[in-house]
Amino acid sequence: MADAWLDGSAWARAALETPVVLVDVDRVDANISRMATFMRQRGVALRPHAKTHKSLAVARRQLAAGAVGLTVATVGEAEVFAAGGIEDLFIAYPVIAVGARSERLRRLASTCRLSVGVDSITGVEALAAAFRGATPARVLIEIDSGGARSGVLPEMAGTLAGQAAVLGLDVAGVFTHAGQGYADPARRAAAADEEVDGLARAAEAMRTAGIEPTIISAGSTPTAVLSARDPVTEERPGTYVYGDRQQTVLAGEPAGVDASVALVVAATVVSHGARGGFLVDAGAKILTKDVAPYLAGHGVVLGYPDAVLTRVNDHHGIAEIPAGATRPAIGEIVLIVPNHVCPVVNLVDELVVVSGGRVVDRWPVDARGRNS
Amino acid sequence: MADAWLDGSAWARAALETPVVLVDVDRVDANISRMATFMRQRGVALRPHAKTHKSLAVARRQLAAGAVGLTVATVGEAEVFAAGGIEDLFIAYPVIAVGARSERLRRLASTCRLSVGVDSITGVEALAAAFRGATPARVLIEIDSGGARSGVLPEMAGTLAGQAAVLGLDVAGVFTHAGQGYADPARRAAAADEEVDGLARAAEAMRTAGIEPTIISAGSTPTAVLSARDPVTEERPGTYVYGDRQQTVLAGEPAGVDASVALVVAATVVSHGARGGFLVDAGAKILTKDVAPYLAGHGVVLGYPDAVLTRVNDHHGIAEIPAGATRPAIGEIVLIVPNHVCPVVNLVDELVVVSGGRVVDRWPVDARGRNS
Repeated sequence: MADAWLDGSAWARAALETPVVLVDVDRVDANISRMATFMRQRGVALRPHAKTHKSLAVARRQLAAGAVGLTVATVGEAEVFAAGGIEDLFIAYPVIAVGARSERLRRLASTCRLSVGVDSITGVEALAAAFRGATPARVLIEIDSGGARSGVLPEMAGTLAGQAAVLGLDVAGVFTHAGQGYADPARRAAAADEEVDGLARAAEAMRTAGIEPTIISAGSTPTAVLSARDPVTEERPGTYVYGDRQQTVLAGEPAGVDASVALVVAATVVSHGARGGFLVDAGAKILTKDVAPYLAGHGVVLGYPDAVLTRVNDHHGIAEIPAGATRPAIGEIVLIVPNHVCPVVNLVDELVVVSGGRVVDRWPVDARGRNS
Repeated sequence: MADAWLDGSAWARAALETPVVLVDVDRVDANISRMATFMRQRGVALRPHAKTHKSLAVARRQLAAGAVGLTVATVGEAEVFAAGGIEDLFIAYPVIAVGARSERLRRLASTCRLSVGVDSITGVEALAAAFRGATPARVLIEIDSGGARSGVLPEMAGTLAGQAAVLGLDVAGVFTHAGQGYADPARRAAAADEEVDGLARAAEAMRTAGIEPTIISAGSTPTAVLSARDPVTEERPGTYVYGDRQQTVLAGEPAGVDASVALVVAATVVSHGARGGFLVDAGAKILTKDVAPYLAGHGVVLGYPDAVLTRVNDHHGIAEIPAGATRPAIGEIVLIVPNHVCPVVNLVDELVVVSGGRVVDRWPVDARGRNS
């Protein structure tokens, strides 16, 4: 199935101006449908994280397949999706509502159903001040379920929720991201258990504080299908929509490529260098330098399984290949599965969309660079 | 001097919508002037690499200070600078002139003084075909002077130059990039020597083949001031214009910050997490994951010398700080010197320009994302 990408003649590879990001819309739709069906069968709401794709075209496909709304990481992303007609948005981030951001949040909350994350008293107080006298956003308390990132300890969720309620905020529930599920393929199942356990303890702490959580939200592609169980009411995976080498390896495929990989970087071989191997025109400004500890090199070069992209400079990808192995010719266009797709998409303004062997569309990355 | 960035009141830090990239125009001008003066005194032409800044505003300052033209990495960057009125451009890259790229190169060569790199017979043949019957670009042979990236061995420069001349190309000289100068602070002087030595041998090989090189071009910020000597005629540093932590450490300042650092990322502290330390809203989508082996963490947090940005996720920077050390308050805006500035600039559409304590301008990153 991975070989479907290799039929170069089918979509006129030679006409591509490399480096360029290609998306297979049929694989995207299959990924969207599979996750939506799974969550529907489990009775768990699906709120995909849009920071992966940042595209209205993809968001609409996710909603059409049954997603209850979108997750975003920043106020700027929320503004782009709200302007594009998405009606239910959750900023799954400890939002600090100060300065111009307060006004932007108030405006958002008046144009869509907005929820925001919070994990500190300072954050609660700023949100309360920002929404005083205005249409309020819903608030979800972020907990740390083992990811060692933002979020309070589960037992603190009740205290924080209580403070938020006292200050007039509409506290809807609790959320977490089990980032530890990315640490190592062997950690995935345990990470999902920690996610469920942390959320259960946080929900209980909220009930003890007199607040019934209506949303208990977990989120990460590695753990989504494993933690979609009681008491979790919502999952927020993002990367599943395009897939990447990291997700494929975490899911148990060491080659880092399978039929879920819906996005590749097309690159031209520009040099054979002076010391063996080959160089492509895809460097860190399109592949990024994202390399999980369990991956070797900066991506998988399809059709050249022995090649390792050992280094990336800004505009050079430098591949080593064992002596005797066939290397691609200078001028050949190769396809590379990136290690981590989210920052790759954020580097380009549009994606070239292919289907059934042809270029069929271009999707703008509408929220590219909307970091703030 | 580094502390000039810390006077928050002066440029109304609180009004910034973080994360955002700030540039101190006075420091930029000092960096431009210092490099230009040095090269003028050495009698070496300066052709700054514009892939660092990708901005016409900066390019014009470099030319006004005496640069002979610009270096770029891609045809797309060349198009942006040519459209902005820059008249002399060198694509210091092994350009493969096939498909639409041929037509784009022909158009460029008819609107500016264009030079391109080449390091293979395939590349030479494609360039010869692309420019047949059209205004030709000048061609420079790329050699590998120890960087183990693109480029032929110095001794092969004569053969390749000869082939190019036979096919009707205007062979102007030879160029290299001593990427090994980035490997380790102790390698810098040796890398410059290797650069000069490789170029000298390549120039000699060209003369033996009957072609007199008029341009002998070296290029990298760590080696520029060390390799600007006979027979080098031109230097192509890029990063010097903004500076970054990596350059500062390579130049012998272990703290990674000095008065040459003209660009920082302003970020808001959004959380104290549940396990100590603090989190900022600058993650890999603005700081990147670029970490040289001799650097600890993902940037220097000014004013918090004990903090280490141990991890960056897409939108989270996670800092550890020793027990007992003061951590910034939630809501505080901190300034971060990035490890490597080039990919940071390529993530944002514009820079906020400060001078003498005020926001004075915004510079668009005109060639952002022009990878192809």
